[in-house]
Amino acid sequence: MNNTPTKRSKKAGLSPGTMVHIGHKKIDKARISIIDYSQKKLEEKQVKNIEECFPFKDKPTVTWVNIDGLHQTDLIEKLGNYFGLHPLTLEDIVNTGQRPKMEDLDDYLFVVLKMIYFDEKHKLNIEQVSVIVGINFVISFQERVGDIFDCVRERIRNEKSRHRKMDSDYLAYSLIDAVIDGYFIVLEQLGEKIEKLEEKVIKDPTTDTVKAIHAIKRELILLRKAVWPLRDVMTSLERTDSSLINEKTFIYLRDAYDHTIQVIDTIETYRDMVSGILDVYLSSVSNKLNEVMKVLTIFAAIFIPLTFIAGIYGMNFKYMPELGWKFGYLGFWGIIFTVAIGLLYYFKKKKWL
Amino acid sequence: MNNTPTKRSKKAGLSPGTMVHIGHKKIDKARISIIDYSQKKLEEKQVKNIEECFPFKDKPTVTWVNIDGLHQTDLIEKLGNYFGLHPLTLEDIVNTGQRPKMEDLDDYLFVVLKMIYFDEKHKLNIEQVSVIVGINFVISFQERVGDIFDCVRERIRNEKSRHRKMDSDYLAYSLIDAVIDGYFIVLEQLGEKIEKLEEKVIKDPTTDTVKAIHAIKRELILLRKAVWPLRDVMTSLERTDSSLINEKTFIYLRDAYDHTIQVIDTIETYRDMVSGILDVYLSSVSNKLNEVMKVLTIFAAIFIPLTFIAGIYGMNFKYMPELGWKFGYLGFWGIIFTVAIGLLYYFKKKKWL
Amino acid sequence: MNNTPTKRSKKAGLSPGTMVHIGHKKIDKARISIIDYSQKKLEEKQVKNIEECFPFKDKPTVTWVNIDGLHQTDLIEKLGNYFGLHPLTLEDIVNTGQRPKMEDLDDYLFVVLKMIYFDEKHKLNIEQVSVIVGINFVISFQERVGDIFDCVRERIRNEKSRHRKMDSDYLAYSLIDAVIDGYFIVLEQLGEKIEKLEEKVIKDPTTDTVKAIHAIKRELILLRKAVWPLRDVMTSLERTDSSLINEKTFIYLRDAYDHTIQVIDTIETYRDMVSGILDVYLSSVSNKLNEVMKVLTIFAAIFIPLTFIAGIYGMNFKYMPELGWKFGYLGFWGIIFTVAIGLLYYFKKKKWL
Amino acid sequence: MNNTPTKRSKKAGLSPGTMVHIGHKKIDKARISIIDYSQKKLEEKQVKNIEECFPFKDKPTVTWVNIDGLHQTDLIEKLGNYFGLHPLTLEDIVNTGQRPKMEDLDDYLFVVLKMIYFDEKHKLNIEQVSVIVGINFVISFQERVGDIFDCVRERIRNEKSRHRKMDSDYLAYSLIDAVIDGYFIVLEQLGEKIEKLEEKVIKDPTTDTVKAIHAIKRELILLRKAVWPLRDVMTSLERTDSSLINEKTFIYLRDAYDHTIQVIDTIETYRDMVSGILDVYLSSVSNKLNEVMKVLTIFAAIFIPLTFIAGIYGMNFKYMPELGWKFGYLGFWGIIFTVAIGLLYYFKKKKWL
Amino acid sequence: MNNTPTKRSKKAGLSPGTMVHIGHKKIDKARISIIDYSQKKLEEKQVKNIEECFPFKDKPTVTWVNIDGLHQTDLIEKLGNYFGLHPLTLEDIVNTGQRPKMEDLDDYLFVVLKMIYFDEKHKLNIEQVSVIVGINFVISFQERVGDIFDCVRERIRNEKSRHRKMDSDYLAYSLIDAVIDGYFIVLEQLGEKIEKLEEKVIKDPTTDTVKAIHAIKRELILLRKAVWPLRDVMTSLERTDSSLINEKTFIYLRDAYDHTIQVIDTIETYRDMVSGILDVYLSSVSNKLNEVMKVLTIFAAIFIPLTFIAGIYGMNFKYMPELGWKFGYLGFWGIIFTVAIGLLYYFKKKKWL
Repeated sequence: MNNTPTKRSKKAGLSPGTMVHIGHKKIDKARISIIDYSQKKLEEKQVKNIEECFPFKDKPTVTWVNIDGLHQTDLIEKLGNYFGLHPLTLEDIVNTGQRPKMEDLDDYLFVVLKMIYFDEKHKLNIEQVSVIVGINFVISFQERVGDIFDCVRERIRNEKSRHRKMDSDYLAYSLIDAVIDGYFIVLEQLGEKIEKLEEKVIKDPTTDTVKAIHAIKRELILLRKAVWPLRDVMTSLERTDSSLINEKTFIYLRDAYDHTIQVIDTIETYRDMVSGILDVYLSSVSNKLNEVMKVLTIFAAIFIPLTFIAGIYGMNFKYMPELGWKFGYLGFWGIIFTVAIGLLYYFKKKKWL
Repeated sequence: MNNTPTKRSKKAGLSPGTMVHIGHKKIDKARISIIDYSQKKLEEKQVKNIEECFPFKDKPTVTWVNIDGLHQTDLIEKLGNYFGLHPLTLEDIVNTGQRPKMEDLDDYLFVVLKMIYFDEKHKLNIEQVSVIVGINFVISFQERVGDIFDCVRERIRNEKSRHRKMDSDYLAYSLIDAVIDGYFIVLEQLGEKIEKLEEKVIKDPTTDTVKAIHAIKRELILLRKAVWPLRDVMTSLERTDSSLINEKTFIYLRDAYDHTIQVIDTIETYRDMVSGILDVYLSSVSNKLNEVMKVLTIFAAIFIPLTFIAGIYGMNFKYMPELGWKFGYLGFWGIIFTVAIGLLYYFKKKKWL
Repeated sequence: MNNTPTKRSKKAGLSPGTMVHIGHKKIDKARISIIDYSQKKLEEKQVKNIEECFPFKDKPTVTWVNIDGLHQTDLIEKLGNYFGLHPLTLEDIVNTGQRPKMEDLDDYLFVVLKMIYFDEKHKLNIEQVSVIVGINFVISFQERVGDIFDCVRERIRNEKSRHRKMDSDYLAYSLIDAVIDGYFIVLEQLGEKIEKLEEKVIKDPTTDTVKAIHAIKRELILLRKAVWPLRDVMTSLERTDSSLINEKTFIYLRDAYDHTIQVIDTIETYRDMVSGILDVYLSSVSNKLNEVMKVLTIFAAIFIPLTFIAGIYGMNFKYMPELGWKFGYLGFWGIIFTVAIGLLYYFKKKKWL
Repeated sequence: MNNTPTKRSKKAGLSPGTMVHIGHKKIDKARISIIDYSQKKLEEKQVKNIEECFPFKDKPTVTWVNIDGLHQTDLIEKLGNYFGLHPLTLEDIVNTGQRPKMEDLDDYLFVVLKMIYFDEKHKLNIEQVSVIVGINFVISFQERVGDIFDCVRERIRNEKSRHRKMDSDYLAYSLIDAVIDGYFIVLEQLGEKIEKLEEKVIKDPTTDTVKAIHAIKRELILLRKAVWPLRDVMTSLERTDSSLINEKTFIYLRDAYDHTIQVIDTIETYRDMVSGILDVYLSSVSNKLNEVMKVLTIFAAIFIPLTFIAGIYGMNFKYMPELGWKFGYLGFWGIIFTVAIGLLYYFKKKKWL
Repeated sequence: MNNTPTKRSKKAGLSPGTMVHIGHKKIDKARISIIDYSQKKLEEKQVKNIEECFPFKDKPTVTWVNIDGLHQTDLIEKLGNYFGLHPLTLEDIVNTGQRPKMEDLDDYLFVVLKMIYFDEKHKLNIEQVSVIVGINFVISFQERVGDIFDCVRERIRNEKSRHRKMDSDYLAYSLIDAVIDGYFIVLEQLGEKIEKLEEKVIKDPTTDTVKAIHAIKRELILLRKAVWPLRDVMTSLERTDSSLINEKTFIYLRDAYDHTIQVIDTIETYRDMVSGILDVYLSSVSNKLNEVMKVLTIFAAIFIPLTFIAGIYGMNFKYMPELGWKFGYLGFWGIIFTVAIGLLYYFKKKKWL
């Protein structure tokens, strides 16, 4: 459960707008990379000091500053102050327990998203991605160095790409879209897990099955919590009257909205499926119990009466005429077989055999 | 589960508007058929090259281009470019994991639907149907050659049909209506399945019953996912202020909307019914267990004491007066019957017999 | 399940507006009855040919045409053409799988309702009732001859009744109200069934109980499907700006709306109650199993050790000192009673006895 | 279940506005009491004939007519006609199966409420209270003589109370508030019941527990049905633009609305709690079964093998060397103890002991 | 369950606006503390008589009066009268069964909140906090002396804090934010409990587990009831057009709203998780039963037939040829082992071993 907000309590009582990094420190030193481009030019570099970003702020070209690592709050604060970010925005950036949201602060739009992926240990990871969209710049914050935005970088480098013709809003859309694309990958993996589980529960349900069901349910709960609010984020982005979003970008935002709904739909469908699998599992457990009980009952019901009969002729009464009969023993076997066959027939009729 | 979006992940990271066919390739070569008609004239042909469609674009007659097969993305791209379709529209057409939706792109309306049918193996199949409605043309895309639109073709061929008097919007409505009509067929088949299941679960529930319940539940989940969004599609079609939809067509769209709601209602009713069947099944399993246990208990409770009594007189104590009594053995049988009848009476009173 | 839309599929592929009777043919020949009235006059007759209705159309008096039987589509088509009904309206009238709805077609209002009653076999029957409200006429369609509208006829015949002072809209309201009144009768019968079931499940639950619960659940599901959409119908009737509804009638429509909500409320309450009864039943099954198992365990746990002890002294070892003791047999009984009483005490303490 | 609408069916088919008393006759003769007051004066009396109320109608003082008993429909009709009440209002007053509602009929407001209390047999009773608010009068109707409005009377008698300064709308508010106050008393009693049940289910669950759970659930269902619609009633009272409600009264109505929401909240919380208690009960039943089965298994698994061993040496084979051995019997006991201790150790390890 | 409204019934029948303290008396004497500040000055004191607060009312500086303890209703009434609070407001302040709400009474805003914390006995405590926001003052009421607002006091004392530059609305926001911060601490503790429970239920479920699940569920129900209405409170604060809230404060209120939603989201997620844990627990109980039954069945099914065979040769028939055979006894053991191994193989194949 390392996806739950970690130690939000250490913020309790602090003044609003106080920057406290909440979350796991996942990287040693924050990495700052800058891409600055216009239709013709492209400049790309990694910088050590945050101050190196400042000159790009007022350039007419589109500047994308990406910061990996959130624990160096002083660095983020300097950047925020220079770019005119509200203290509450800065607070939200470093607090990774944030809910996805979109805020219009006139000078810039602030979008918080959740990036989701299965790590190498097949564990669901949820990381916070914040995006600031200003007039000529986009600043993105990630919890650690990841390759999720590499595809966007690649496309920017291509001089003929749509990026080079469009503004910072399209860049921001691309980043959001890259995050949403990640959801589909997670959903596919979950879908495969569910399919396997379904086969297993029908063919060979074991006690581990219920744990697997529980684990997937849990992942779906976390996924849902991370994706559900995105619907509102995309709706408000699409309907914003902020001048930062160009007319031409709306159709792309609409597309991203559609993808979000598709993700949510699929999560809900998966939830329904998993709870169906649990039903199948539980009824298979009941059926197994029934089967066990039938075996026990058949054995007990057949042999207990037989043992009783054998017990009778093991008695030591002086006057037991049957014991002396010539065919007494044979007769005993006769009774035994009659009783046994009668009972077997009875169970056959009850469809227990 | 071949109805889940297949390999959406191969799109991750690509530029939006990049056409990648997502879905199963269900046909070798795309089939292109054209019907062009006005009140008086009718021209119908199948073409090999997509370019043969282009002259129809600017004719005043209504042109319907139907394309079966989505994997030849180059072909669809050519068509899209000539007819002025937005890259995102083209992307959505070939991505069969799309959610039903309706988009108004000023020059044309774009509608995505899900066609649903049971195939010859009684498996639920969901295929994507896209419809483009332009000023004098309709372009429809199917995943493979099907006969779902044959009835529409038949009606167009009839010179007196409503089609020949109306515009492309009525043609589009007919296509959507044909898809919705397909839902009723699927629902009827499901309804019959549910009825049979219900009878079975009341008369003779077996372990297969729960699998059948699960299978129907799953089909209902998939159906629901495919049909639910259609409600919004029909609402926005009905309320659109696009000039592409004539006043006279609205009553037909309203009718199609009613059918959609009817389908959704029936799905929800079926879901309720199936979960009721599961309850009956589970309680029948519990009852069976009870019955098994009663049989075991009656056998055990009657014969175990009797066996004990027999065991007593099988003991070898020197001084056991009963063994020497003349009517000892008879007395033994007397006790045995008394105990047995007493226990039977007890179980009778408990209503276990 | 003869309440499900029957063979809607035979319509698939037909042109919209094609009249196909969907439903069970419940009557041999359609019966047409006409009541024409004004404040002073009343004319009432049954006609053979639909053409006899036509002269009434343009009379200033209020005319009520009631048609029982929907399978003679030609008859209904003639009527529809003369009274100016839209083909889609006619299609909906004869398709009994319709959802309750209200449509304003400028010249007339079209209302579809579901009449519900328990037939003589105590089976829930759902029949479609359609009402057309025109400027001076009301046309109603029923699936078969019924007595549901007799009370309305009776009131019209009374010269002092409100009907004679009001227009066709009040007549239409009366018909709708008569249908809704029928729901209360069904609900009362269901209420009694539920009460009986509840008593039974607490006093003497049997395996039939779960079938009875399931049957009532099913009836509630069907009822709900039929009544739920009525809420929207009544809302749109109440809010319509159609000139066909007079100001004075709105308070009556409001009253009918209240009744509808009351019916829906009661259905939901019944659903809650029935699912509560199922819980009680299931827990009573579990309790019974517990009780059975306790009886088994007590018998087995007491007599199995005793039998073992008896078995010991049935052994044939040469050197078994106890066998030769004078009070060996008495001692045996001492042990037996001690063990038995000890175990009984143990089970008493466990509250199993 | 005497809280369900009783015999609503006897109304079916009657003209709307026909007064039929639906409900249990709870009183022999209706009691009519009048309080008439202004800031200075107070007149209070009980009358025999309804006509004695009429003179108060047009007085400028506030008049409160309270009628206990609804079966004398002629009396209520007379009153209604004199005070100008709509026939549908009168119908609703005497039909106790009404849903809480508020209607604005221009000349007066009509409010239907449900009074709820536990009677001396600890049974939940639901009675209908109707309140008519006119320009200078309030008429209230109760099913039988009760003391719920005594507190309001007391306050009116106090010359300094807010009542004497305010109009009929404040009086009506007081009556509604008295009814809502009654809900809190019922909720407290239910809360105590739930608390006791919770303790019992954790300490000592019996088969009666599930019946108690079911009974509380049922009471909550009835309560919910009676209170839930009150939310809408209070909202429409608060938002009404009727001139009958003074500006100063709105804050009191808002307060009553808050109380209603609080009641609904508490009901929902109780429902959640009760369903939690059911879960605990069911799992305790399962656990008990497990415990019973363990006892049985331990007894059976230990003594059945031992009995088998004893049985071996009870055999009468001629050549059984062990029987002749000197320490054969001792050896037998050795084996017996070894097996018994081994099995006990095994069950200990399985944590069954 | 000492969190339920205690004895709300003692208010029933009292005039609205009557102050009755409802709740546990948690403190002996109310403590009154005043902080008065402007950008430059700060005055802080604790007073004995409520009259000492009065001079601060009309000062232009911001005054914060905090009152711990609600049972001295006379004191609160005096304060209320001087500061112009409505009787209903005063009634709500001392009635701790209040639902969180926000009321705009023109002269002041009235906010009711629930403070939540685990006490030293790890029991969830819910206390009511009321905040009055006037033009230059804030009055807060707590049930007992707590340290929740200490952080706010600390910040006010700091001359450079945002408080000293802003008005009473920002102070009120800070108090609300401090309460919401408390929720995160409770959620973290609950999160840890749930995590532990989850581990326990997977590794070693006992009968105590279900009680722990129930306890957490109950805490979540109470938490939910306390926090859910806060959503509406924050929405109405954010959207209020009251002149008491400055433009600059809205972004902080928006932030507090986001936190509220985050809390609600987390509660819902926890509820889902806990019900998942219950599922795992119940299925583990079923599995255990299965396991117990398998052990019983294996023992019984193997030894009961063997005992029967031994019983046969313990019979005393005169003519039993096997008894005389030389290898009879050896043969017996042969049969015994064959049967035992056969049955073990059978159970192995059934995967019961």
